[in-house]
Amino acid sequence: MSESFAMNGGDGTYSYTKNSNYQRTLTINVPLLLQISRFDFAFISIREASNIAREMIKEAIVERLDTESLTSTSNKFCIVDLGCSVGPNTFFAVQHIVEAIENKHNLEEDLGLRKLEFQVFFNDHISNDFNTLFTSLPPERKYFTAGVPGSFYDQLFPSSSIHFAHSSYSLQWLSKVPEKLLDQNSPSWNKGRIHYTGASDEVVSAYASQFEKDMGIFLKARAKEIVPGGMIVLIIPGIPDEVQPSELPAGILFSFLGKSLLDMVNEGILNEAQIDSFNLPIYSASPREMASLVKRNGCFSIETMEMTDPRSKIDDPVNVQSLIMHLRAAMEGIFTKHFGSEIVDEMFKRTLKRSADISLCLDSGYKEGTQLFVVLKHK
Amino acid sequence: MSESFAMNGGDGTYSYTKNSNYQRTLTINVPLLLQISRFDFAFISIREASNIAREMIKEAIVERLDTESLTSTSNKFCIVDLGCSVGPNTFFAVQHIVEAIENKHNLEEDLGLRKLEFQVFFNDHISNDFNTLFTSLPPERKYFTAGVPGSFYDQLFPSSSIHFAHSSYSLQWLSKVPEKLLDQNSPSWNKGRIHYTGASDEVVSAYASQFEKDMGIFLKARAKEIVPGGMIVLIIPGIPDEVQPSELPAGILFSFLGKSLLDMVNEGILNEAQIDSFNLPIYSASPREMASLVKRNGCFSIETMEMTDPRSKIDDPVNVQSLIMHLRAAMEGIFTKHFGSEIVDEMFKRTLKRSADISLCLDSGYKEGTQLFVVLKHK
Repeated sequence: MSESFAMNGGDGTYSYTKNSNYQRTLTINVPLLLQISRFDFAFISIREASNIAREMIKEAIVERLDTESLTSTSNKFCIVDLGCSVGPNTFFAVQHIVEAIENKHNLEEDLGLRKLEFQVFFNDHISNDFNTLFTSLPPERKYFTAGVPGSFYDQLFPSSSIHFAHSSYSLQWLSKVPEKLLDQNSPSWNKGRIHYTGASDEVVSAYASQFEKDMGIFLKARAKEIVPGGMIVLIIPGIPDEVQPSELPAGILFSFLGKSLLDMVNEGILNEAQIDSFNLPIYSASPREMASLVKRNGCFSIETMEMTDPRSKIDDPVNVQSLIMHLRAAMEGIFTKHFGSEIVDEMFKRTLKRSADISLCLDSGYKEGTQLFVVLKHK
Repeated sequence: MSESFAMNGGDGTYSYTKNSNYQRTLTINVPLLLQISRFDFAFISIREASNIAREMIKEAIVERLDTESLTSTSNKFCIVDLGCSVGPNTFFAVQHIVEAIENKHNLEEDLGLRKLEFQVFFNDHISNDFNTLFTSLPPERKYFTAGVPGSFYDQLFPSSSIHFAHSSYSLQWLSKVPEKLLDQNSPSWNKGRIHYTGASDEVVSAYASQFEKDMGIFLKARAKEIVPGGMIVLIIPGIPDEVQPSELPAGILFSFLGKSLLDMVNEGILNEAQIDSFNLPIYSASPREMASLVKRNGCFSIETMEMTDPRSKIDDPVNVQSLIMHLRAAMEGIFTKHFGSEIVDEMFKRTLKRSADISLCLDSGYKEGTQLFVVLKHK
């Protein structure tokens, strides 16, 4: 069983619902956010004509998805959003996909006589707040709806029953923390850190190897579920082949969170062993790594594999405080489970106080596109 | 949009989860319960070999469901439980159905080489507690799972995508209260009552006509969703063609609840207009009515249409107090929405004090089978 790392549910101050809404306009200008949460980029794209991901999804559907042959025996078209969280971002992503497929189908069909019927499956961990998801469903939706509880590191659907799978900012979550990181006798013991940023090669390699296993299981499950000719679109935080994790904005933020915790150790508020026994199960893959895993699986052709920049052309300065708020909404749960809510509250407060330092580091870090956009097609 | 009447969610004292569990053994001997809630009879049947519904579902599958032709092009088999509530009863019902279909398929298939893959859709109103449903899913289940939020008085699935639909103790809930009942100028004004039991013919006919409309919409939606040869099993509280509503155990209980409310009016605790403006949207259909509605729809053949007795052969005396507890778990929500929680608490307490009278009335009422068991097959 893989572990579950849910976003903050409900609609309180630090909820994902409130904060993903809040970030909607902000993130148009702050690509960093997209690397540290399951924030759904397709959402922004609805509002931002220049958005790359939106156009890339549309392009993949128009140029590479054979809707005619996919719907030759039935007009049912099944879509899944893997790692949907509680909305609203998943609804925008799904709406965009449905519209793109419908438009393409209508152009191909004679007068659109065989209207497609869409069934959309919203998937997330069993602990996801599906009640909030369901009550937030857009009333004007043009698809049949179902919620699918369970980890996408398992098979979730019967064989050959899905035509299009979408997953945005979810696959960076590993199914679990690699055991070696917690083993004091292993060279991969991750002492004094909460992530692989700035850690030894052994630690980085333990993370990479967990990602490799997870991605293998993910692709195997999808290979069963997706019909031949069906498509997967993956949008995840990525890292260019030549860049170091410590140069990434997400890595910089994780380091500052770690520093806040270490300060608490020095002040006697926290036991160091608690930091040693905690590791964020989050990984940013490179295009080279991802391509190699897809090839190893063997069931999918790579249609697109690109590092992109989620930023729009408007280039406002980064608001680090909002960035930390978003980080909190997306990741508070996993920290709290380990450290308890008081320590976590303190950690975020202390990190907020370092906004100026964080800003400086971000400025000197890697600033190009850190979003990995992948389109696969089932052979 | 139809209205939603959810069971008590969560797992508190009066929750459906707690009280449907509690009733599990009790109801083997108390058929009355089954008429006043969406209690899932198939659940009991797991434990009670002599149970009629269990055997009847199995018989319908073995003798009347052509699994071979249903799965000739795909080994995917889709089941829906319409009005599933939060479990656990729905899980037992579904398990029984899956096993019966699997057994039949394995007997027919050469060495069972083409193993069926089951996808089970759990449907209920959007306000149903799906979080509780999902976290209660049996870990050892042999099917893929999805939750489908929405009223079954709408189409819930793409055309021809369901092979087997089950609905137990849900269809007695009308989509809404017929308007006429609330109109002081109509002969159907239901003054001083909360149900049609003991009311004028006009009131009864307003209820019947709403059921007719609802069932028409229900069958039309299912006719689209269910594949040719696919099956619907409906288990609902029913009334034999020759029996009066006031003789039914459910009718007797509703009358006593109404009396408790009227007492409060006499004591000045409650305004009479509040009773006049409330009507329970619950209806017990007769086999004759049901058959006529199925024929009018025209898409289904009637395979079975029987009044059955859910009682086992053990015949313990009825425990009226438990009966009222169960009634409360199933129906508190709808009363509270109208009267507020204090009045409803008082109503149930007062009704409990009348247990002896209720017991006498039940004894002199209709005591044979009041469960309508229907099997339909899509032409």
